[in-house]
This record gives sequence, structure tokens and C-alpha cells, in this order.
Amino acid sequence: MMKFLSDNTAAVCPEIIAALLGANHGQAAAYGEDEWSGRLDAAFGAHFEHEVRAFAVSTGTAANALALATLTPPYGAVLTPSGSHLLDDECGACEFFSGGARLTALPQAAGRISPATLAAALDAHPPSVHTVQPAAVSIAQATECGTVYAPAQVQALAELAHARGLQLHVDGARFANAVASLGVRPADLTWRAGVDVLSFGATKNGALAAEAVVFFDPRRAADFELRRKRAGHLIAKHRFVSVQLLAYLQDEVWLRNARRSNELAARIGGAAGARVLHPVQANSLFLRLAPAEEQALRRAGFEFHPWGGRDSGEFRFVVSWDQPESEVRALCAALRDLSP
Amino acid sequence: MMKFLSDNTAAVCPEIIAALLGANHGQAAAYGEDEWSGRLDAAFGAHFEHEVRAFAVSTGTAANALALATLTPPYGAVLTPSGSHLLDDECGACEFFSGGARLTALPQAAGRISPATLAAALDAHPPSVHTVQPAAVSIAQATECGTVYAPAQVQALAELAHARGLQLHVDGARFANAVASLGVRPADLTWRAGVDVLSFGATKNGALAAEAVVFFDPRRAADFELRRKRAGHLIAKHRFVSVQLLAYLQDEVWLRNARRSNELAARIGGAAGARVLHPVQANSLFLRLAPAEEQALRRAGFEFHPWGGRDSGEFRFVVSWDQPESEVRALCAALRDLSP
Amino acid sequence: MMKFLSDNTAAVCPEIIAALLGANHGQAAAYGEDEWSGRLDAAFGAHFEHEVRAFAVSTGTAANALALATLTPPYGAVLTPSGSHLLDDECGACEFFSGGARLTALPQAAGRISPATLAAALDAHPPSVHTVQPAAVSIAQATECGTVYAPAQVQALAELAHARGLQLHVDGARFANAVASLGVRPADLTWRAGVDVLSFGATKNGALAAEAVVFFDPRRAADFELRRKRAGHLIAKHRFVSVQLLAYLQDEVWLRNARRSNELAARIGGAAGARVLHPVQANSLFLRLAPAEEQALRRAGFEFHPWGGRDSGEFRFVVSWDQPESEVRALCAALRDLSP
Amino acid sequence: MMKFLSDNTAAVCPEIIAALLGANHGQAAAYGEDEWSGRLDAAFGAHFEHEVRAFAVSTGTAANALALATLTPPYGAVLTPSGSHLLDDECGACEFFSGGARLTALPQAAGRISPATLAAALDAHPPSVHTVQPAAVSIAQATECGTVYAPAQVQALAELAHARGLQLHVDGARFANAVASLGVRPADLTWRAGVDVLSFGATKNGALAAEAVVFFDPRRAADFELRRKRAGHLIAKHRFVSVQLLAYLQDEVWLRNARRSNELAARIGGAAGARVLHPVQANSLFLRLAPAEEQALRRAGFEFHPWGGRDSGEFRFVVSWDQPESEVRALCAALRDLSP
Repeated sequence: MMKFLSDNTAAVCPEIIAALLGANHGQAAAYGEDEWSGRLDAAFGAHFEHEVRAFAVSTGTAANALALATLTPPYGAVLTPSGSHLLDDECGACEFFSGGARLTALPQAAGRISPATLAAALDAHPPSVHTVQPAAVSIAQATECGTVYAPAQVQALAELAHARGLQLHVDGARFANAVASLGVRPADLTWRAGVDVLSFGATKNGALAAEAVVFFDPRRAADFELRRKRAGHLIAKHRFVSVQLLAYLQDEVWLRNARRSNELAARIGGAAGARVLHPVQANSLFLRLAPAEEQALRRAGFEFHPWGGRDSGEFRFVVSWDQPESEVRALCAALRDLSP
Repeated sequence: MMKFLSDNTAAVCPEIIAALLGANHGQAAAYGEDEWSGRLDAAFGAHFEHEVRAFAVSTGTAANALALATLTPPYGAVLTPSGSHLLDDECGACEFFSGGARLTALPQAAGRISPATLAAALDAHPPSVHTVQPAAVSIAQATECGTVYAPAQVQALAELAHARGLQLHVDGARFANAVASLGVRPADLTWRAGVDVLSFGATKNGALAAEAVVFFDPRRAADFELRRKRAGHLIAKHRFVSVQLLAYLQDEVWLRNARRSNELAARIGGAAGARVLHPVQANSLFLRLAPAEEQALRRAGFEFHPWGGRDSGEFRFVVSWDQPESEVRALCAALRDLSP
Repeated sequence: MMKFLSDNTAAVCPEIIAALLGANHGQAAAYGEDEWSGRLDAAFGAHFEHEVRAFAVSTGTAANALALATLTPPYGAVLTPSGSHLLDDECGACEFFSGGARLTALPQAAGRISPATLAAALDAHPPSVHTVQPAAVSIAQATECGTVYAPAQVQALAELAHARGLQLHVDGARFANAVASLGVRPADLTWRAGVDVLSFGATKNGALAAEAVVFFDPRRAADFELRRKRAGHLIAKHRFVSVQLLAYLQDEVWLRNARRSNELAARIGGAAGARVLHPVQANSLFLRLAPAEEQALRRAGFEFHPWGGRDSGEFRFVVSWDQPESEVRALCAALRDLSP
Repeated sequence: MMKFLSDNTAAVCPEIIAALLGANHGQAAAYGEDEWSGRLDAAFGAHFEHEVRAFAVSTGTAANALALATLTPPYGAVLTPSGSHLLDDECGACEFFSGGARLTALPQAAGRISPATLAAALDAHPPSVHTVQPAAVSIAQATECGTVYAPAQVQALAELAHARGLQLHVDGARFANAVASLGVRPADLTWRAGVDVLSFGATKNGALAAEAVVFFDPRRAADFELRRKRAGHLIAKHRFVSVQLLAYLQDEVWLRNARRSNELAARIGGAAGARVLHPVQANSLFLRLAPAEEQALRRAGFEFHPWGGRDSGEFRFVVSWDQPESEVRALCAALRDLSP
């Protein structure tokens, strides 16, 4: 079987395996007091060309929910595109971590919200004691539709958010893919564009279980560590999370892995032609397939998820950092073989 | 420096490293749908000689807080010994996960509560709409004082708890050390003695980051998975948590590691003589040291934590599964050298 | 000024004032142990021709949020029409009381959801560990648009909800108006149609501050009292809430008050003609007004709220139980005077 | 039967009844936008000789829990005397409203904590990511033992709290009794002594259901209204809560009622002689009674609560503002008749 189900099905990349083995010698202080963990802030600071506080956790849901809990009070609302991971795939984690804040779904196109949409949503939520108060905006890079926001698009949303007293969070579960896609620097997609807090993903792109929450204003990070501990997300043998992140940042492992899956996805997109639903800008692609086409692909050994609800005729294919090229070649061929 | 600070400072044992590397081939279904994760229930069932549901998480705090959240309503109380890990070292995780249930501290001796203490606490909390209602008892095996409860002691607490409609949870962060110490079977310390839910620790005793929540009545586990996901504790590449647990259970790795640290701790206890505060029954020991004695040990290169509050004169030493025997020998010698 | 802003602006009706004064003699047991409070279950049982448990609180938000907290786990979702009071006017109370459950907005027409809409929403939320799980449906009687559900409409929703394992809650802040409008018995709109829990309003229709949460299956009420106390909603001098409800139920005070405001609203609806947006079935009516028309009414001394967002051109008029008939007459005349 | 069970069993005093009736004319803006509610800040400002923000709610539990929720983060701890109302009589409301903060019980004597006790507790909770962080101290005036803190005692606690970054909250369910007892001005017991937030009680001392949360630093009150609404504690017909408070403050109703119950309690204390457990400084008194004595009093028609746990031999008597003098005379006589 050839799996295009999720980049979470991938293995751990060799550089990160080597780092894990390299750290497994003798004793090291627990709960983040070890030497590797002590280097996280500097490593992320160099990566982003900015002073940051960076905190390691082991899942993307934890990263998002902890980040948002620092940005919204319990009576707040987090505005996020409909279909976002926060809304549909985290079982209410944001609500849980924030003490009951509300996720408000905004209309989106190809996974992205526009400044006009955001402005309309804010206008519809004037200050009032009778209802939840917008506190943050959360967008994803790359989006759930496999598209990306260009720096100027991020900046437009950030300016609008800040003008209304909201913070901007980015769910960067596939942040490396977005950076690779746009050919910009990590700084261009984050603090230079006004992003306040980033969930920085590594797991999907080659790590075992490692994500970071990155605060571009270190003062906002004041209570993060208490929230992380309280949520059971402070790993005891913390060196083993930190070394994953350090190895991921070093020697552009993150970029190499992301470029590869992006390029393979683009190749598949080319083969799929008019069946492609959204621009293929990262490592996910969405296809419209007739029932017979879907069956043909499945019979040929490809695994992939339906998307967009029952009978929508839409399907998601995700390319992993370690996807065998032969599988991509086979998929391209199979797509081209479908009657046009 | 020779660290006796915590068993969380230990490395990962070779059997578990081998298992991690062995699972790192190609793609595997994410979020617990992989073949290794599918074997957890059976592996834990064999370990406990009972049908169980077992769920992997990556920290002990998550295991405890998730387990207790299934046992107590928000208006409940969890009775636990004063000084317990739940109370003093988890930053309010139980309160968070349960939606605000209360931890009620019970007087303890050497880390253990007695049936009489528990009965008195329950008598002091009669059913009333005006105050929180006891819902669960949580004890630790081994305790925070390095002692253990014998099966009959567990059973006495379980019977009392059940008679009053409460459930019994065991924080088994050092469960293997307790089993090794008592020379019993895992079943004897759990369901046979009336334990309802166990936080089964592996991290301190050789894993990288792996704990299990084990339900001895599978029906009680109904909503655990939703709570775990919602708390950000469902690991994406779940195979890498599950294989740690499988390797830990196989070929008595758990027992071998625990026996070793227990025996080394006992040796240190023998050398410490009358300075020992509690019976040394697992891999932690607590010593009373005069200031000059403390300084002598620190100068000799030993690291260890003060315990029991400022100026208590009490200190904790923890022996890890991989503690070099030379360090233990050196500590024994240094203790014997202290003026009597 | 003639206020048509809200039925919450009304005074307390004489029967309820008399009851409050009548109960203000000497001492009475506190916290609901008094004789009046002891009669609530029976009084509501008679009202609904069914065994019930009925609990008094002092606000509608408390009634709704406490009721729903008993119906949904923290990882649950409550399906409710877009624009519902729960969503837009309770500042996230449902999320707070439930420990973070999610309100999911369903498309509605004239404030009502249809079985087809509900079925589609349930189909879009299949059982999954990755997202919140629907636990309850909450509709309002009368709706936020001043319409009502007929018994058969309620029953269709109830059957669908129950078939999928959900409970049906009714926000009856204007329940009396709905019953009066339909000319049915209270039972016909509740348990006979499959309603599980009702927030029974009295405040808007003549009480000072008194609502009830009514469970049609008494077993579901088991932990309500603990939740109410914990939320600070167990009134100390409880007799003064209970007597309001007893007086409200007695001698059809509820029906008389509701009929009057319904009839006056209907009269205004007749005068408003084609400007009426939704069928006028209770005591609220919604009009589309051109800017000049709005100004004309305001200059004539009428107060009313804009509705449906900025520049929607929609306005809400609510008639209170004690609305002076002269004000209604004046409003009818003013509406007829508007250019057609 | 002569009830000395609780001051919550009392009726509503005539001045407050008159105010309620006086406000019951025609329509008034809802949700606190009415003219009476608009006068609350000024009325409380005059009462306390200081700029304040004052918010009305209908129960003491709501007042305490809402006040503390503004003072502590979810990972915080509130230090409070053992046996406090927060701990034993509010069913975990503080935990609920704060999102899971912890109540930490401090040793007390006659209901009061000393600066030394507070200092020791703070020393035992050094800053650490591993455990909850003290955020507030909450004491009661009068205390649960019927005693009061003198201004200098409050000030000593406030200075200590502030020096460690904590806020000081006072549960003033019987604040009027404390002021009357000490013969000071309300300001002396609050902001002049360093109190940050006060739960100001009126219900026990003559109101129907009215308490206020008073912030002595108006900036701290910023999000109170959202929290109150979210908790269902914004009364719709708010004028009827506000007028209770306005009438209570006017013409020293609060002081007259409190003085009366204090004086009657003192008289009973005199009659009880050596049976009195704590200094009788407000309107509650605690007696040690032999079983035969208890029975004699009950047979004579007196109702009162056991206190301090089963078989403690301790009993509480509370005198209400409207306690008939004949009942007090009878109780004094009965106490004197007990064998010495």
C-alpha cells in the first residue's frame, strides 16, 4: 500500500535519530534544566533573527492550545477559518486550555481568510458585556487546504487584528513547508509580518514528537511554563524533545525535508491537472475525483482520505518528507491514466 | 558530579532504544491506529493477567490528571496524602483536567495513608450540597517517601473507598519499583487489591517518554480517548510511544531495571544507618543530615535535593536504573565516613 | 419615552409582589429547605402533568447554562440555531458551566431549525476521537425571532436527537408566550413532545428574578443541586425565589400575562403590515424599516433595538406583560402613518 | 421553635421592602442600565470614602468566587483559613470560577490567620514551575468563628501579601457586623488597611438577595462585568438588586441591623459564660455543650447547628437582625439554667 494519508505517518529523519542517540549518554537534569533545552531560545532566536522565547512540547494540539490560552481570556473568542485544525481536529483543546473561550469560524477561501472577512467579523462583535469578546486571530501556515499566506497577506491580517486589540497566532504545523514554498526567510512570515505567537511544527516534517511555541515578544511568555506544566506537557526527560528541535533547525534539515515533500506534491498536482481543487503550495493536495476514479486509485494501492464531508467527491493527498519517489511516480502515472 | 537528584535524569535503556529504532521504518498509521499501538491492550492485559484498557501518554502528570478526570466530577474531591506528587509537583493539573475538582490532603506517615485516616476524612465529608463531594482516593506506589503499600494495605483502602462510592487510583510513576520491592505480581498490587485505575510509569525506569493509564474495568475507559485528545496528549506518531511500552514490558525489562535501582538504594540505606528517615523500600531514600554533613557530601561531588521545606535538614537521594555502581559505592563510603 | 426594548424592562406583577410580601414573616430555613421551596416539585409536576424535578435560579443564563452542563460532557457539542440567546447573549456561559463544551450554530429560518438541518449537522459530526461530540440540541420557545415551534415540530427534533444519543433542551425564557400562542398544554410542548430539560422563564413575564430548570426525567437531575451551589446560584433566602414561581403558576398568572403581551404584539404586527419580517407568534416582533421610518418612530418617542447587525435595516420590538395599552395604540398608529 | 441556625433564615427588613416596592413602577432599562444601578458606584464610594467600582450580585458565593477569579490565574493558589466559607460551604465555587485555582488552607485560631502563619505558608510556596503559585489571600470579616480582625491585623496581612505580590480579598458576608463590632469606619477595615477587593454582604443583615463586590482599585475591575455575565449573575431586572443595596447603605440601615444582632449575641455570650469557645465579637457564637445540655436546649425549643465535626461537642448559634428579643431572653435564661 502506498500511503498519502498524512505526513504524521512518516518516520523520523536520520538527523533527528542521530541527535536522540547522541543525547542518550548518562544523566541530565530533568524538566528542561538540561543543557540542550537551555539552547532552545538561542537556536530559535537565530532561526527567526529576533529575540524569542521558545518552548518545546510534544504535540501540535498542545502547542496551539497552550499558545492560544495565553492570548485569550475565558470570555474571549478566537477567530479562525472554518475547517481549521483548531475547530475540527483538536477535540475542543482550545476551549479546554483557555477555560472555555470560543472558537468563531470565519468564511475562508482555499483555507485563507481575507482582511475583509476579518473586518466584518470584528464589526459583528462590538464590545459588549453580553457576549464573548474577540481576543485573537489564528491562521495556519500552510493552511488546511495546502495553500500559504504570503507575507503581505499575513501583515494585512496582523494590522487589522492589532488595531482592534487582538493578537495574531499562527498554527505552523507545516510552517517549514510554507517557508519553503514562498522562498522567504522565517522572519518574513512571522514577526516581520506582525505574528505574535507561532506554533512551530517539526513532527510532520521529520521529528519523532516535537513542536515549539515561539513568542516573538518574550514578555508575553511569562506564564507559559506554568500552563505547560499544569497541562502535563512538560516532558520529564526534556533533553529528548529539545534535541529533536535543535537537530531540526541545524543544517537546514527543516528546509530540505519540506522542499522535498513540496516538490513531490507539486509534481502530483501537475499530473492531476484540472482535478486539483486548490493551488498546490505545500505538501498537501486536494483532488476532485469521480467515484470510478477514486476506486481506480484505491485498487492501484493508493491510500488517501476523503475530505469535505460525505459524498463531496473531494480527497486529500499528503506527501511526507520520506515519501518514496517511486510512490509519487506511480501516483502521477495513475492520475494521468484516469480518463480526462 | 554524581547525580542522585531524580530518576528522571536517567538515560533511555538499550532495549527501548532498540525498539524505537526498530519501529522507524516507513509509514505507519498516525494517532494510535498503527500495529504497535493496537497491541497495547493485550500486552498490558498479559502483564496484569486481566482484561484492561491501556492508553499511552508521554508524561506522568498527564497520566494522573487524565485518569483522575475520568473518576471525579468537577464538584468532586480527590483524597490524597499530603506531600503527594499530585498536590505538590503537578501545578494543579488534576484541578485543570477535572474542571476544578479539589485535592484534599490527608495526613500520612512515611508517605502512606491508613484506613483510619481515610475513614476519618470521609466521615468529615458527609453528603451535602454545600461542599465538594469525595469521588476518588489517589495513592502512590512507591510513595513520595520511597515506601510501598503491601497488597493488603491497598486492599483495605480500596474496600473503604468502594464502600463509600469512591474509586481508587494509584499513581504508579514508580510502580515497577514497588512490585520489585514486594516480590509480588503486578496483579496483586492492582485489581486483585481493588485498584480501579493505574498510572503506570515507564519513563523514570528506562523509557524516553512513555506512561500508560490502565483501566481494570474497561467500561470506565469510555471517554478517555476524547479527554486525551482534547488535552493534546494523543501523540501523532503514536507508534513511538507504544513501542517504548511494549519493549518495557517484554522480557522483564521493567523488573530488571527496577530491581537494580532498588538494590542500590538499599545498599545506600545500609550505609546511611540511623540517618535514614523512612524504610528504604524502593529507589528513593531520605536522609537527615547536619549542615556539615550535607556540605561534606556536596564537596565530595554528590548532587541531591533538599526535602521537606527550608531548614528541615532532610534530603532526598534517588537512584536511577542506570546509576553507575561506582557512584553508589562512592556514596556509601562517603556516608560511612560521616562522623556517627 | 415608550419602551419596546425588552420584556426585561417590565415591572413585577402584583400577584408576585403579594407573594413576596406574604412570605416575609419571621424566620424560614435557608438554602431551599423552607416550606415554599419544598412545594416546587409538586407545583411544577401539576403544571406539566408529569413527575418532574424543578430547581429555582434567578437568571435565564444560569438556567440555560446549568441545564446544559448536565447534558453535555466538556468534550461535547451543543447544537443550537445561529443567533440563539446561548450563542449571542450569554457571554459564553454554556462553555463556562460545561467545562468548555462547544456551541455549534445551525442554520435557521425565522429562528427555527428543521429536522433536515439537524440531521445534516449530525451527519457532519460522526463519532471520532478527533473532534467534539454532539451531546445536546437546544432550541428556544418562543424563538429569538418571536416565532414558536408547534408540538409536532418539537417532536420531530426530539426523535432525531434521541436516535443519535443526544438530549433536547428548550430555552423557555418566553415559554409562557409560546404556550399561550399555540393554545396547547404545557405538557404538549415539553415531555409529550420529547423535551428532556426545560429552562422555564418567569422573569420576563412578570417575576422579579425567578426561573426554573425543569427535568422531565428526575434521574437526570441527580447532580444539579451541586452544580447550582458551585455556581453561586443557590439563593440563601430561597423562599423569596420559590414564592415567585409558585405565585406565577397559580391562578394562571403566567397565562394571563403572556396572552396579553402576545395579543398586543399581534396588534402591532397587524399595523406594521408588510414590514413584518417573521410571523408574530409571541410577544416580540421584527420589522424592516427604512432609515426615515426608523427616525420617524424614534422622534415619536418609541424605543427599540436594531437587530441583525449594523445597517441591516431590521429592528426588534418587544411587548411586556405590563405594556400600557396606550403605548401599543400609539405605536400602531405611528406604524400605519408610515408611507406604505 | 426558636431558630438560631443562621442569619440567612431572617426576613427582609422594612427599609429594603419599601425600596423594592418603590422601584416597581413602570419600565426600567435592563441588565444594570437603569438609574438605580447607575448610582451604585457613587453610593459605595461615599460609604467607603474612596473611589470604587461596586457590582451587585445575588449571592455571597457568587461575590466571593467572582472576586477571586479576578485575582488569581488558573494556576494560582488562594490562601485562606481552614474552615473558611470558601473552603467548606461553597461547593468548590472558587475553583470553578477561577478555572481550577487551588484553595490552600492555613492554620487559624478563632477563625483568624496570623502574619506569621501567612509568612510561613508563603515561604513554603517558593516560585516554581512545578506547583501552583500563591496569588491571593482571602480572610473573612467577621470570621467563621464570630471573631473580627482589627484594622491593624488586616494591615499586617495586607502588607505581607502585597510584599509577595499577592492581593488581599475580604469575604464580608458579615462585614456590617465587623464594622459595628469594632466601632470603626468602613474605610478603616478596607482600603486604609490594604484590602484590595471586598465581598460586601447585605443578605444576612436584612436584604432579600443582594451582595456587592467592591474594588478599591477601579482598574482591577476591568473584566468583572464579563465574568459576572458569563456566570449568569447579571440580573435582568437589575434595578431590584441595586435598590436593595442603596436602601441598605442609606440612613445606616446596615449599622442599625448589625448593632442589634451583635448586641443580642453578646448578651447570649454573657449568659453562656465559660461555655463560649471564641470571643463573641459579631452575631455568631460558639458554645461547648455536654450532650445533656444540648438536649435540654433543644427540648426547650431552640434550634442551632452542631459545628466542628461529629461528636466535637461544639455548637453554633447565630443571631439575626430580626431575632425576637423574647427568644434571646429565653435562650439566656436557658443557658443560665444549665448546671455550671
